[in-house]
Order: sequence, then structure tokens, then C-alpha cells
Amino acid sequence: MWLQKQILLKPRTRGFHLISSEILRELPELKNISTGLMHIFIQHTSASLTINENADPTVREDFENHFNRAVPENHPSYRHRDEGPDDLPAHIKTSLLGNSLNIPVTSGRLNLGTWQGVYLCEHRNHGGSRRIVVTIQGE
Amino acid sequence: MWLQKQILLKPRTRGFHLISSEILRELPELKNISTGLMHIFIQHTSASLTINENADPTVREDFENHFNRAVPENHPSYRHRDEGPDDLPAHIKTSLLGNSLNIPVTSGRLNLGTWQGVYLCEHRNHGGSRRIVVTIQGE
Amino acid sequence: MWLQKQILLKPRTRGFHLISSEILRELPELKNISTGLMHIFIQHTSASLTINENADPTVREDFENHFNRAVPENHPSYRHRDEGPDDLPAHIKTSLLGNSLNIPVTSGRLNLGTWQGVYLCEHRNHGGSRRIVVTIQGE
Repeated sequence: MWLQKQILLKPRTRGFHLISSEILRELPELKNISTGLMHIFIQHTSASLTINENADPTVREDFENHFNRAVPENHPSYRHRDEGPDDLPAHIKTSLLGNSLNIPVTSGRLNLGTWQGVYLCEHRNHGGSRRIVVTIQGE
Repeated sequence: MWLQKQILLKPRTRGFHLISSEILRELPELKNISTGLMHIFIQHTSASLTINENADPTVREDFENHFNRAVPENHPSYRHRDEGPDDLPAHIKTSLLGNSLNIPVTSGRLNLGTWQGVYLCEHRNHGGSRRIVVTIQGE
Repeated sequence: MWLQKQILLKPRTRGFHLISSEILRELPELKNISTGLMHIFIQHTSASLTINENADPTVREDFENHFNRAVPENHPSYRHRDEGPDDLPAHIKTSLLGNSLNIPVTSGRLNLGTWQGVYLCEHRNHGGSRRIVVTIQGE
């Protein structure tokens, strides 16, 4: 069984955001899959997806601060500058974190660990709505 | 054909560890897949999975040293500190390296390159046993 | 439906290179898949794959400069030195960026965003031809 759906996420501020429930709300069909995989793909090059701690919001603030230090804005070596100081760092962060996730599906549910949640990593100051493509396969 | 199995890895010290053979030992069914994919997912947010060099152990020591420099403990900006100085860096390293792998299966075997092995990246000082979910699909 | 193919990429210089069209040229069967996924796996530990901006070539130059700063050659802590100063950094960059991609297939085409392209990230000075394994599944 295959199911594929495009979802438009609501716009978010720059930073790391839990989106598990926003995605699952659009996928009632998941409950029909006893064994499978769910693939989530973001169709952008300045926002990314990762899985991390779903409880304490300071983790997500620390992520934003870490990645801003690791990939600074306005580094003198950057040549791609036309779209603002947040643009090239957003591309690099996207490749560091990745633009797709693959999560096991078991008995109609995502088989995540207790503390795992799906993050949208919004690397632009004004990224707007982000498009994701979810592909579910299984039996 | 779908196969899904939860595997409890034996506890390991902080660092990078080859686990290909420990995983394959639990998956004798792999030999029945002529063409497919094997997905390995770790259900934690402070340990990760990657594929890298399977020969010289100094590569794995250099990885541990590199990631400790790139994501230092006790950075003054960290706000998530309740679970010890190794905790927040472990979350960041996990998202940098990723928590799942997808490997082609060909003629009943993982179709890895000659020098590729699966690493468990244990980012905590005392991480204990780690749970992974392996999903194999193919024909 | 499953399709698996090994592709030998032409050798490239150290740096980040768009390879979407070189891969798609080898996969005319893709047009027969209405809903599915394409998995691309590189069988090496010193070159990686990522998805990023497919237009301005300065993005790819900035990537090369960023990753050279983030993972320097000849760091005094490195122990794995036998294969040249570009070797251990190449291993680390490969794990940071990742060695496989999973892309949704919709109506016979890769369902990438407008600005997304597939990059080969060649981290060695003389990497030679790189082998990838493409696995397409769908209906």
C-alpha cells in the first residue's frame, strides 16, 4: 500500500519547532498500516527536518544558538549574498541537518522513542509556509 | 515482503562503535531478499547512527575528538543543563549525524562499499542499552 | 515494483557538484512509477550526497569553504593520517552530510522543490569515479 500527500505547514519563526502533531493530523490513513515506513521530505533548501527531544523547549533554543554559532552570518568568505545574510547559512544548515526523515510505522502508529519528536528547522528569518511531501508505504 | 524487528544493542562506552555484525546476527531473514532496502532507526535523541570506515579504529577516535570540539560541553549559552554536561551536546550531535540509515539490499546481503560499516555513535557518558528498529522490505 | 541499478559517476574535482541529470539519464524506468521513492546510496566513506540549491554556483563554492573551515586538515588531534591530510576530514564530512538520499517519486518524476538539486560532495583531492546504488520502488 502506498499513500502520498503534500502538506503545507503553517509559517513559523526562525528556529526549531515540533511539528509531529501537525503532520499526523493530516494522515488518518496511518492507522491502517500494520508494518511500514513513513517518509517526510521538505521541498526547500533553507529549512530542514530532524528528530530530537520532544519535551523541554530549551533544547530547541539551544539548537538555534548552536547552529548560529557553527554557521555564522556574514562570514567574509561567503560569495552567495544576494538573498540576505540569513540565506547562505540556511542552505548550509539544511545540508547539515538533512531534508528528509524515514520513520518506522508499527501497528498503525509512528514507532518513535518516548522522547522523540519531529522538528521543522526554520533557518530563514521569514521562511513562510513550507511544503512537505509525506510518502507512507506498508502493509 | 516486509520484516520489522526491534533490537536491543549491548551498552557501549561514549564514542563511535562498529555494529554491523551485531545487527546482522539478528537478521537471518535478510538472505531471502533479492532486491530491497534495510532501514535502521534508533529510538533515542542522544545517540545516533552513521556509516563510515570499517577498518582503522583511529578513525572512530578522531570522530569522537572532532565532535567534542565542534559541540563543546558547558558552553555558556546552553540553557538545557539539568541532565548533565554531556546531555545537550548529545542531542546536537544526534541531529548532526542522524538517527536512521537506509541501505540497499542486493542478493540477500547489504550492498555496502568495501570500506563501509555501520556505526553506533554513543554521545552520552552512560547511555546504556540502545533500542533500534530495523525494517526490511523487498522482493 | 522494484528497480535497482549501480551507476558509476564520472570523476569530479574536490567540491560540491550537481549530479541530478547524470543520475536521471540512467533511469528511464522512472517514468513508469506513479507513486514511489527513489533511494540513492554512495558506496564510499570519503564522498557524500546532499540536496541543495540548484541555481547559483557560488552556493556550492561557499559549501566547500565552509566545510573546510569546520573540518580542518592537519588538526593536531588527528591520529588517522596515513592516507593524506584530506582523508580523515573527508570521513568526517561524509558523516555530517550523509551517504544516502530518499526522494519522493510522483507521476513518473522526482518530486523535488523548484530549487532543489542532488549534490555529489567530493571530499578527496583525487577521489576518482564514485559508485552509487539507486533503488526505486513504487507502483
